[in-house]
Amino acid sequence: MNLSSFAYGKWISPETQGTAIKDASTGEVLATVSSDGLDFKAMLEFGREHGGPALQQMTFHERALLLKELALYLSKFKDELYDISYQTGATKADTWIDVDGGIQTFFVYSSKGRRELPNQPWYVDGDVEQLSRNGSFIGQHIMVPRRGVALHIDAYNFPVWGMMEKLAPTLLAGMPAIVKPASSTAQLTEQAVKRMIESGILPEGALQLISGRTGDLFDHLTCQDIVTFTGSAATAHYLQNHPAIIKNAVPFVAECDSLNCSILGPDAVEGSEEFDLFVKEVAREVTTKAGQKCTAIRRSIVPRGQVEAVKKALVDRLKKVTVGDPRAEGVRMGPLASLAQRQEVVERVAELSKEAEIVLDGTKPFDVVGAHFDSGAFVGPTVLCCDQPLQSGLIHEVEAFGPVTTLMPYDSLDEAIELANKGEGSLVASLFTFDPEVVFKVTMGVGAYHGRLVVLDRTSAGESTGHGSPLPHMKHGGPGRAGGGEEQGGIRAVKHYLQRVAIQGSPDVLTTVTNRWAGGTANTMDAHPFRKSFDEIKIGDALYTKPRVVTLEDVEHFANFTGDTFYAHMDEEAATANPIFGGRVAHGYLLLSFAAGLFVDPAPGPVLANVGLENLRFTKPVYPGDTMYVRLVCMQRTARENEDFGEVRWDVTVTNQDDEECANYELLTHNTRVQ
Amino acid sequence: MNLSSFAYGKWISPETQGTAIKDASTGEVLATVSSDGLDFKAMLEFGREHGGPALQQMTFHERALLLKELALYLSKFKDELYDISYQTGATKADTWIDVDGGIQTFFVYSSKGRRELPNQPWYVDGDVEQLSRNGSFIGQHIMVPRRGVALHIDAYNFPVWGMMEKLAPTLLAGMPAIVKPASSTAQLTEQAVKRMIESGILPEGALQLISGRTGDLFDHLTCQDIVTFTGSAATAHYLQNHPAIIKNAVPFVAECDSLNCSILGPDAVEGSEEFDLFVKEVAREVTTKAGQKCTAIRRSIVPRGQVEAVKKALVDRLKKVTVGDPRAEGVRMGPLASLAQRQEVVERVAELSKEAEIVLDGTKPFDVVGAHFDSGAFVGPTVLCCDQPLQSGLIHEVEAFGPVTTLMPYDSLDEAIELANKGEGSLVASLFTFDPEVVFKVTMGVGAYHGRLVVLDRTSAGESTGHGSPLPHMKHGGPGRAGGGEEQGGIRAVKHYLQRVAIQGSPDVLTTVTNRWAGGTANTMDAHPFRKSFDEIKIGDALYTKPRVVTLEDVEHFANFTGDTFYAHMDEEAATANPIFGGRVAHGYLLLSFAAGLFVDPAPGPVLANVGLENLRFTKPVYPGDTMYVRLVCMQRTARENEDFGEVRWDVTVTNQDDEECANYELLTHNTRVQ
Repeated sequence: MNLSSFAYGKWISPETQGTAIKDASTGEVLATVSSDGLDFKAMLEFGREHGGPALQQMTFHERALLLKELALYLSKFKDELYDISYQTGATKADTWIDVDGGIQTFFVYSSKGRRELPNQPWYVDGDVEQLSRNGSFIGQHIMVPRRGVALHIDAYNFPVWGMMEKLAPTLLAGMPAIVKPASSTAQLTEQAVKRMIESGILPEGALQLISGRTGDLFDHLTCQDIVTFTGSAATAHYLQNHPAIIKNAVPFVAECDSLNCSILGPDAVEGSEEFDLFVKEVAREVTTKAGQKCTAIRRSIVPRGQVEAVKKALVDRLKKVTVGDPRAEGVRMGPLASLAQRQEVVERVAELSKEAEIVLDGTKPFDVVGAHFDSGAFVGPTVLCCDQPLQSGLIHEVEAFGPVTTLMPYDSLDEAIELANKGEGSLVASLFTFDPEVVFKVTMGVGAYHGRLVVLDRTSAGESTGHGSPLPHMKHGGPGRAGGGEEQGGIRAVKHYLQRVAIQGSPDVLTTVTNRWAGGTANTMDAHPFRKSFDEIKIGDALYTKPRVVTLEDVEHFANFTGDTFYAHMDEEAATANPIFGGRVAHGYLLLSFAAGLFVDPAPGPVLANVGLENLRFTKPVYPGDTMYVRLVCMQRTARENEDFGEVRWDVTVTNQDDEECANYELLTHNTRVQ
Repeated sequence: MNLSSFAYGKWISPETQGTAIKDASTGEVLATVSSDGLDFKAMLEFGREHGGPALQQMTFHERALLLKELALYLSKFKDELYDISYQTGATKADTWIDVDGGIQTFFVYSSKGRRELPNQPWYVDGDVEQLSRNGSFIGQHIMVPRRGVALHIDAYNFPVWGMMEKLAPTLLAGMPAIVKPASSTAQLTEQAVKRMIESGILPEGALQLISGRTGDLFDHLTCQDIVTFTGSAATAHYLQNHPAIIKNAVPFVAECDSLNCSILGPDAVEGSEEFDLFVKEVAREVTTKAGQKCTAIRRSIVPRGQVEAVKKALVDRLKKVTVGDPRAEGVRMGPLASLAQRQEVVERVAELSKEAEIVLDGTKPFDVVGAHFDSGAFVGPTVLCCDQPLQSGLIHEVEAFGPVTTLMPYDSLDEAIELANKGEGSLVASLFTFDPEVVFKVTMGVGAYHGRLVVLDRTSAGESTGHGSPLPHMKHGGPGRAGGGEEQGGIRAVKHYLQRVAIQGSPDVLTTVTNRWAGGTANTMDAHPFRKSFDEIKIGDALYTKPRVVTLEDVEHFANFTGDTFYAHMDEEAATANPIFGGRVAHGYLLLSFAAGLFVDPAPGPVLANVGLENLRFTKPVYPGDTMYVRLVCMQRTARENEDFGEVRWDVTVTNQDDEECANYELLTHNTRVQ
């Protein structure tokens, strides 16, 4: 029976016989897959007309809560997803990365979205730009959800995480998605999507699924759509050349081949903690997911003097790995996802062996646990070693997408850097060293060629997530061969699904567009701001305080009370010599304190507390005898969903008797909401 | 004589006969252009091997100063550049946009670079990411200069600005550039480059010039290079498909066709200030540079009831424009850049006239001032009007790159938005309205389709830079048809020439890599920090203060002294009811003041002043009777070139007797440098 696709609100399973999906260990046919008869244009339109508008209207916080609900819902069905995952050759540990990793990604984006994005549908990007002398014409960038559909074409190795790591920023941005998993493991993606859809959490049209090929979908892409692709460079290049992609400048985010490397620092000799950590990490990267990870360590770069020691330690470790059916007891490494993949890896190892010696060969038949070697896609851990790696091209170009790594010696740190960069762009590099100079030199030397750099040592390895784990917080993607794309990376990834537009106009126009006071009209409030609830305060509401004279007695009293007897406040002669002050001045903290004294309304009310202060600048000294005035303007209001208070950001300006600005800062208060 | 190219440190003028460059008004042949015989591979290598390393070693501030020096140097040669510019058909006002606009862009980037970027060669992007429970493994993104060459392929219409707007962020980022101007106006670019090179300000290899075609250059691009292109979509698509671009994921930033629009708001009826501003702006955009601006208003979208009034006012205004040789007295609009362009515009107007009525026709022969119509590339202001614009395709697709605009009526604001978006992606839209609701609705409605949106009204028009002016501060570029690229936009544009790499490791590793204290080792200083000069303080240097007990008397005394008698400090019963405090607490400002009292060293020394404070959060209340401790750690040091002081950023943490954090903030001081 063909897997189902979810298109224009319906589950559809084509009748034509599709391609077979087989169990990776046993070869048993589990399902077939075909997208024949799907109306791809209608899918795009359904997403744009239903999913898009529904998501665009929601705020970032509301979308973030969808992610959390979906993650909670999916968590209930882990057992069933694990069982399907074993069919793909993944062990329990591998599946944890895929299933729990995917769910965790939703949780992280949900939490980041509520912490780092505003509770409104669009994003205010960067600062106000002053474009005119008198400030009547200014600029500000905002980012709004793109009005199209995100098509996500995913790889076979992480059927759940691969989908969810892209869905999280997409949905958070307010864009609907069409997910197209690789056929060989599509049954796992299908089940996860079924659960998400049945939950009823997402608006209609926010998520669709293509089990099978994309047909003529590309022909119908417009300038508002976006395509992401994870897979082989050859396929990426083919798709990227589609006329609709080029003509409409459809963003095409690719994550492709990558000859990732790990460098053992010159200080990390045999017996050091970093040496042991390195061997352990390389072994882990070779065996996890049977090496079918875009981020796995394909090139292990070690000081020439350490090659033999590394070779021995690594091979000893890898020889102990039990390979077999993941459902069998004691198995630590499963088969590849399909026989086709196995064939591919065998061929690539043969290619690599033209320029590197095979030290440990996993491509020959061997005993597997709980299955027959011939029926499953088994490859054992494989280690090669290339003695003159600077002279070799292949070892920096050929990616054997299985449990394979190539050792390569270096004679100087410069050479190690050159070797690392010969991959011509990778997703991740790592470095094992405890020497800050090595850290600095390698970072600056390899930074432009790698999307991520993990530096591990005795102090960080214990809590480290390791070389090969993309994290929602950090950029995933790399230049050149790795495809040039960026995924994850916290809120950066959300911005890929938003369109940046530069807005220019008056301060009042910008306030209207950003929901953040941009320095225009400041209307005196009809009541004291501390008497207004979060929901009653309006952006631009202002309080102008009474004046207060700052006397020399105030300054001296404050100095003695607080202990801050800095000479600029207490010693006329020394203060006069200070190039900034030219005489005794009031403490900055005295101004802040007096300002609060002027604007605070003491009785209990909606203002619960002053919780913070930002961007304070003292712009002109206040001298004894000066008179200070304070203006307080409501700048921004931020309330999270399901909280009974909100944060109000106030612009506070302290001026003197000549109307000169002496200090400016943003004050944060928590105010109760209307009950 | 062929124009020269500047390649691998030499000025080269090929001997083969090149393509003729003609005076736009007179048709006189001025020069020829050919790049025959240039070694393009060697140019790329020269940039990578000489210009790249020299720029990469410099700090952002040093590179910013290069821009300033170049701008100052070029300013001396404006007269000569203006004279050449007149040959291209540009009037004095047009040339001001090109030449002065280009120079100004260098000044703005120079100043932004020194204000917004650190004085080190690489950029720290975003915040530290907490990746582990105990904080021993954390993350941070940095951005380093790409190790390749930026190839800038520019359009003919702004031979100076078009080069400089791209060069500014490129050089600031630390990347060398190869500039390739369009042949028809390449003599102006050549002269500007000659001046920049002869100044000796740039390191060798930082800037090269191709006068003529790019030959086999694309074949030699690698993953570290970047290409920008301004010109026709057809050429962009051709170049973008080059195998080396695809294979190496070379970023290709395109700025192409764009059917920009301007919307007259429903409130802006005849007689209103916004109506007049709109007509004036459309007329200005039609005539400036004879409409050869990527940002010109091609589509003028007006309420149906205002069409006749707009038509009349616009045509009256345009009929008064004197067209001719820019060198002739009284000429306000020059010819197009070449006869080929003229031919193109005439054809496009004919195409548009299939779906729009010609109201004012500038394509027929007419009297020109100071030249003969037949020898120059003259086209007069041209206005079309399309009655049913929602039914038309052509008027939203065909760009007549000359003094041409099409009026189109709308019946509702939703329709105006739909019309604006039918351009399928443009560089800029503008809106003339004084109604905040219209501002909000249009911004959200059109934001995803336009790179920039200018909202003008009676309060901002006076100081406005207008619809068609890209500014260094604001994004230039648009989605879809406009090419999908982003140029300018302040420091955003610099980031295109940097490579982002995610760094993960221990706090000490991140401190090493970022030059910013990341929460790791905090070493007690060997002297009080206020006794150390800017140059003596090291990142991670720490001061741990003595304790101070905060008494109820302190709180009451502070309240009465400052006037801040908020109930949470003064009224036990009310404070107990406060959900955050649950009892009387010390003022936040009291803690800040006492903290200063604890860490300030009073005698004159290198610390000149506390100039600011950032990111303050009160994380736990301090109750009367609590004991406070303060830790001060040097977090970052920022010194600009040529200043005798630097800014030190201190991480300040206030803890209580149970070692719980009560407040955290960053304090900024100015410290004198070692003399």
